[in-house]
Amino acid sequence: MTDNYLNSWNETEIKKSITDFVTKVTAENSPGFIPVNERIAVFDNDGTLWTEQPLQVEIFYALYRMKILSGKDPSLKNTQPFKAFIEEDIKTLSTFGKKELLEIAFKSHDGKTPQEFYRNVKEFFENSVHPKFKFSYYNCAYKPQLELLDYLRANGFKIFIVSGGGLEFMRVVTEKIYEIPNERVIGSTTATEVVYDGTKPVINRLPQLSNFDDKEEKVLNIHHHIGGVPVLAFGNSDGDLSMLRYTLNSSEYNLALLLHHDDASREVAYDKDFVLSPLNEALKVSAAEGIRVVSMKNDWNEVF
Amino acid sequence: MTDNYLNSWNETEIKKSITDFVTKVTAENSPGFIPVNERIAVFDNDGTLWTEQPLQVEIFYALYRMKILSGKDPSLKNTQPFKAFIEEDIKTLSTFGKKELLEIAFKSHDGKTPQEFYRNVKEFFENSVHPKFKFSYYNCAYKPQLELLDYLRANGFKIFIVSGGGLEFMRVVTEKIYEIPNERVIGSTTATEVVYDGTKPVINRLPQLSNFDDKEEKVLNIHHHIGGVPVLAFGNSDGDLSMLRYTLNSSEYNLALLLHHDDASREVAYDKDFVLSPLNEALKVSAAEGIRVVSMKNDWNEVF
Repeated sequence: MTDNYLNSWNETEIKKSITDFVTKVTAENSPGFIPVNERIAVFDNDGTLWTEQPLQVEIFYALYRMKILSGKDPSLKNTQPFKAFIEEDIKTLSTFGKKELLEIAFKSHDGKTPQEFYRNVKEFFENSVHPKFKFSYYNCAYKPQLELLDYLRANGFKIFIVSGGGLEFMRVVTEKIYEIPNERVIGSTTATEVVYDGTKPVINRLPQLSNFDDKEEKVLNIHHHIGGVPVLAFGNSDGDLSMLRYTLNSSEYNLALLLHHDDASREVAYDKDFVLSPLNEALKVSAAEGIRVVSMKNDWNEVF
Repeated sequence: MTDNYLNSWNETEIKKSITDFVTKVTAENSPGFIPVNERIAVFDNDGTLWTEQPLQVEIFYALYRMKILSGKDPSLKNTQPFKAFIEEDIKTLSTFGKKELLEIAFKSHDGKTPQEFYRNVKEFFENSVHPKFKFSYYNCAYKPQLELLDYLRANGFKIFIVSGGGLEFMRVVTEKIYEIPNERVIGSTTATEVVYDGTKPVINRLPQLSNFDDKEEKVLNIHHHIGGVPVLAFGNSDGDLSMLRYTLNSSEYNLALLLHHDDASREVAYDKDFVLSPLNEALKVSAAEGIRVVSMKNDWNEVF
């Protein structure tokens, strides 16, 4: 099934590699046939499914939340790194690494229970617009990628998000934006504990990162959570290289894709210079290792 | 849909509580209607879906594996606790706690990669019979439970196993026995690391327990893995009490079931005296807290 899917993809080599792969693994009599249960596709989120520039959506959430928190505790306004968040000092924020920034962000991801946290995040999504694109964060997903998810679903693929982003943060919106249910979302986790309210177990969220789902950790989390090896993987940064290589080297028929943001006029052009999630090594090794590079500028006729 | 399901369940209060619950939450115009995506059901495995007596199947696997390992390293034969395993000294084995025993078992769960481990476990299942029941371990699941899984699936439930058993061990057989795919199996995990064979990431299994999926940990793993609260939970021991309480107290319409092994003639009668997985507190609080106790003897007309 290719009809009426992938309309925002130009008729390039990349589109052909996707449709050829899907056709080959779904045709019953093809030597490359993969049973439905093994059609596992994994997607990074930030910069792969939705925009991550100038900062990841979750960092904008941390910024939003820190302003609220500093209203209650004004001393935060003069303490780094909170000061940089509160002043929306993107230049200073960009000097932190992704993990470091996520650790700081998780401290602002208050909400003692998952339910409180959910409400806080939901409120942010309902009431904010992206500072650069000026539309709702709900609309920050790339149209060609939404079409690709639909196309893969229609061809029997099980789609998982495997992202460095916060697990609970993503789950507030991943069903609505991508039609991916919670149990198919893998991400970085906050520490948690169970306390009892009478006989009721209540989950308490602790303001610290317990698992940073990046690089090799993505491979281990795919193993633990999914229990199978992906046949398709899509990423956009060096943090995704391990799962792209895992996909390429573990299954006989596979497709590993890497989105290159080279479209300054419609989105933004960046790769190795984006310190929060650089694309450097993955791009360098792509040709030699068979990772296909998707050019936003050339392969997509629409972005949002 | 109730027709042609649950035929091994007697027409008792328990069966009625199950069919009433399912009818209520699936009828579109019922005040208790639960959308398909939220119909989350969690099942313990050992002693709930299949027999765990006189020892859990995984402990029999450890025993089988230790015999092979002691052929290579005869000194193991004289070292406890390996000695007890190798001599099938069930009395001594029963003096260990479940976590302690699983820790020891994990040391025998050799197989450096998931693929090697899978082959070892598969070999065991293909070539062994249960020492008490004398049939294949593949047939150790309870017939009424298989019917219940079918019934819930037919009614749109998403079924997850949430077990203290080893995650990788279970996944060798859970699809075949229960038709539950790997990504819906949650269990205790072994430590893992990624090493590289050239550019290929390879998962190495380390012989130590990293997460023991028991008691409160089941609640946290449900939150992390599933990202939703179960509306139906089924267990058989105190290790399941937290997830039964989580289910009862977090969702408006729910069903929490506890299997009581009271059938000495067809299976075995035990509860608090089974040190590897005692049922004591959960049974005591069941009536007061609304946990429904399933009597193997009275509620099931067939067992295997």
